[in-house]
Amino acid sequence: MSAQALTDAAIDRSALFEFLLRLGDNALILGHRVSEWCGHSPALEEDIALSNTALDLIGQTQLWLGLAGEVEGKGRTADNIAFLRDGHAFRNLLLVERPNGDFGKTLMRQFLFDAWHYLLLKGLKGSPDPRIAEIAEKTLKEVSYHLDRSRDLVIRLGDGTAESHRRMQQALDELWPYTGEMFMADDADMIVASAGLAPEPSSLKAGWDEIISEALDEATLKKPADGFMHKGGKRGVHTEHLGYILADLQFLQRAYPGATW
Amino acid sequence: MSAQALTDAAIDRSALFEFLLRLGDNALILGHRVSEWCGHSPALEEDIALSNTALDLIGQTQLWLGLAGEVEGKGRTADNIAFLRDGHAFRNLLLVERPNGDFGKTLMRQFLFDAWHYLLLKGLKGSPDPRIAEIAEKTLKEVSYHLDRSRDLVIRLGDGTAESHRRMQQALDELWPYTGEMFMADDADMIVASAGLAPEPSSLKAGWDEIISEALDEATLKKPADGFMHKGGKRGVHTEHLGYILADLQFLQRAYPGATW
Repeated sequence: MSAQALTDAAIDRSALFEFLLRLGDNALILGHRVSEWCGHSPALEEDIALSNTALDLIGQTQLWLGLAGEVEGKGRTADNIAFLRDGHAFRNLLLVERPNGDFGKTLMRQFLFDAWHYLLLKGLKGSPDPRIAEIAEKTLKEVSYHLDRSRDLVIRLGDGTAESHRRMQQALDELWPYTGEMFMADDADMIVASAGLAPEPSSLKAGWDEIISEALDEATLKKPADGFMHKGGKRGVHTEHLGYILADLQFLQRAYPGATW
Repeated sequence: MSAQALTDAAIDRSALFEFLLRLGDNALILGHRVSEWCGHSPALEEDIALSNTALDLIGQTQLWLGLAGEVEGKGRTADNIAFLRDGHAFRNLLLVERPNGDFGKTLMRQFLFDAWHYLLLKGLKGSPDPRIAEIAEKTLKEVSYHLDRSRDLVIRLGDGTAESHRRMQQALDELWPYTGEMFMADDADMIVASAGLAPEPSSLKAGWDEIISEALDEATLKKPADGFMHKGGKRGVHTEHLGYILADLQFLQRAYPGATW
């Protein structure tokens, strides 16, 4: 292998690592957020359903961060990566670190994320990298169900009482400026996309708009215009909320390094 | 020294350690709670006043936990004790770990605590142990001011608008069952009180009732009856809230053991 080829391979590997970290961190941080509802949901059925969503996402985290560690090649496990990084090394979208708010806001965040997550995984299912394709295929089944469920609840609550409608519209308006980051690409995204390993972020926007628009119409909610969009999460620039999430999430491993059970 | 005298001294020392831990932990946990308002208060003046209260309490923590470490005689510093204990080793009242809620609830919690804190420190100022007397004298000045302020605001908000009145009454009703623990004694309290080092907890109740009743009258708030009272904090049995507080509070020292700046 020539020196140039070796450099290219190194670039690809670090871009791929970055890309996998984003997938794993989105699942981890959203999984943690959703798990905060455990025992607090408005109805037992919803409590169980949300807790299952959280468990699915934590399971997906293990797969993506496990592969990230493998690609990185420094011997880090999924647990190492999840529990021993500081905030600036996290690559999740700002959307998934937004506070839960009320039940409606949690579901709106879930729906906006699920629709994108679903389309991304559908694209990754055809990845020529068999490790990526395999995880995508497995997790797509779970995420299809998440999307069915969050879509259904957004419609029921949007087209529900005056109060539930008002709250869902407010949640949508608040969260919308955090959706743009899903479709913005940086070098890592472009390297991975050019290598044919993953769809280009912007290519998911039309399909996402369609899913969202249809559901919002049914929900009698008004889709906000695309204006200013927050960004930063994908490159490690987070809101204050992430620090509090990590303090909870990482406490045990920080207080008792290496603890297992 | 006879073997019996040695045992007595050992019992006193561990009871005194326990007593000092409670003083320090009340200040630490309430100080942390109040500091959560920093940057979020309804008015800038209140933000600064609350932040100053938090700083006073954190300063008091250093004094009490520093003395606790000295009495314990195992070389632990105030920082060690604050940052490296788990929840079950914390001895604060359940009252001070209650969530902030709205601004009115935070002030009601503060007032209920300040009145007790003030009376306790007044008692400790006359302690024959000069180390205790000295800290009590210094901190009493700060706490007198805390009490003036929280009392004043409880009156203004209680006797304010219909909405502020409603909220203050609700805060009072919610927090009241957490006030009983301040006046309950266990062995450690009784040993320290019998040695004449501190007032008996129950001896503070009448004075506290008077301060509270007068202010509530002025605030047009209805004093709840003394019914069921929560307890446990003083002996390390805490609500779920303490875990979240410690996760935030201890994160840096847990993630970077021994870090200084």
